[in-house]
Amino acid sequence: VYPVGMLHFVDRLLQRIEQASAPICIGFDPVYSRLPLELRRRGDDELHAILTFAERTFPVFAEHAPVIKLQSACFERYGFAGVGLYEVLIHKARQLGLLVIGDVKRGDIGSTAEHYAAATLTDPPSTPAQEWPSAAADAVTVNMFSGPDGLEPFLRTAAEHGKGLFAWVRGSNPGSDAVQSLELADGRTVAQALAQMVSQAGRPSRYVGESGYSLLGAVVAATKPQDMAGLRELMPQQIFLVPGFGAQGGSAAELAPVFKSDGSGALITASRSITYAYGEPGASNWLSAIAAAVVQFKAEVAGVLR
Amino acid sequence: VYPVGMLHFVDRLLQRIEQASAPICIGFDPVYSRLPLELRRRGDDELHAILTFAERTFPVFAEHAPVIKLQSACFERYGFAGVGLYEVLIHKARQLGLLVIGDVKRGDIGSTAEHYAAATLTDPPSTPAQEWPSAAADAVTVNMFSGPDGLEPFLRTAAEHGKGLFAWVRGSNPGSDAVQSLELADGRTVAQALAQMVSQAGRPSRYVGESGYSLLGAVVAATKPQDMAGLRELMPQQIFLVPGFGAQGGSAAELAPVFKSDGSGALITASRSITYAYGEPGASNWLSAIAAAVVQFKAEVAGVLR
Repeated sequence: VYPVGMLHFVDRLLQRIEQASAPICIGFDPVYSRLPLELRRRGDDELHAILTFAERTFPVFAEHAPVIKLQSACFERYGFAGVGLYEVLIHKARQLGLLVIGDVKRGDIGSTAEHYAAATLTDPPSTPAQEWPSAAADAVTVNMFSGPDGLEPFLRTAAEHGKGLFAWVRGSNPGSDAVQSLELADGRTVAQALAQMVSQAGRPSRYVGESGYSLLGAVVAATKPQDMAGLRELMPQQIFLVPGFGAQGGSAAELAPVFKSDGSGALITASRSITYAYGEPGASNWLSAIAAAVVQFKAEVAGVLR
Repeated sequence: VYPVGMLHFVDRLLQRIEQASAPICIGFDPVYSRLPLELRRRGDDELHAILTFAERTFPVFAEHAPVIKLQSACFERYGFAGVGLYEVLIHKARQLGLLVIGDVKRGDIGSTAEHYAAATLTDPPSTPAQEWPSAAADAVTVNMFSGPDGLEPFLRTAAEHGKGLFAWVRGSNPGSDAVQSLELADGRTVAQALAQMVSQAGRPSRYVGESGYSLLGAVVAATKPQDMAGLRELMPQQIFLVPGFGAQGGSAAELAPVFKSDGSGALITASRSITYAYGEPGASNWLSAIAAAVVQFKAEVAGVLR
């Protein structure tokens, strides 16, 4: 477990990436109906099956990858009990040495953003910290629709607690163009305007680590390669969290522009192509199929950097 | 309690507004440190104080207002236990006859949006519906950054379960201009482009109630009066959920353009100006101060419609 607050988030992240020797992140978006049949034979408790799936797969992820991203929505659909499991899994992943990104895409006006920042990056006020290990993520994804003052409380909270943020700049879905590719009167796209906002918001020295990167990173999808080079240039101090690899159609060859010339600056995420690598839920070798997919994913990303 | 699914969300909403004779919504954003001292003398359990605050105030809200909006962030900051209280309070408000809007501002790419739609508009799969009353909100606020295909799962789920949506088009905070007022090459603003998307996405007849309004409404802040008339015109079938009244600076006189000529089409929200109307937390008459603020709020909004 990393001593939160001892080291700037980005420096912890880069250290972990170096130790694992690949900038990859496993996206964990558990959906009961796609879990191995073996885990679904115990009866009706869907959350218990997801817990078991995590307990079996997290050690494999931790062996090969520096970072895991938990999809909050997959837990929230089970109500408060699902949120409880999300917290438990953050703790379990951190115990295994994984850095944890909470994929929550929260965002609202400043006064509400303050609550969301506390909710996603810190432990509840009533938690006896000495007895109960932190269940707050190391970093979260945020939505920028409310502008800079909706981002500010997240930045302040993250800086105070040694955490990180990834602002959602470019989505991986086909329809995201409808908003993010809108052309502005000054020739920029909406995504480029957001990128400049992110670059500026993350620039103050209190947000920047030893490595020169800011605790404020950006989500930039692998499915929009035509946008990557431009966004990389607009956000020199941002680590890119790059979803869309694998199941969503992004390929390794298209990834090169998200990295800086020294090979740093991006964290490539694959989710469904890893966690459901076994294909048929009935497959008995599901865990080894997942392990093989992680190893292959790691090799593909490493290949881009060679 | 309303029989969910029996009547289209918008028709239920309009019926409740008519019964209460004012299109107002109470925003419930509980913050422990601002609660009446009387409720904070029991010791350290912040969630219990919030529960008591709700149990005392909800009957007052239900007497005068048709709708309550719960700010999810204020509960999420307490972790899974806070989310549990959020669910309990949705149920309690519905039992009192209030329609409940969950202010969650969720949004993500389609596959994730499906989980968020299930999380916010339906009950968890493991809930024994016969024994446990529904704790899902009647409607939720959503974020449109991922474009139409991120909205689609919310629309489908809402239609299936007799629920409603309010897409976030125009925020009440000063900084929201930085994104929402960006001017596009075709002369529209980002907010206007989103408004047209909302209008189109909500138009299919399966989403439209007897009243002609769509289950897809829009969040349009009262603090940006210069934008209202234009957005009203772009979204003829949308009910506007209008935050920013009261504490955030919106005034009654500026509200006129959000209503259609027949007085329908908007739901005005006040939050902190109502729930903290007692000013000093030590005030012994806090509940009557809240009741007076609700009555005054209702009269002000009714005044706009006369």
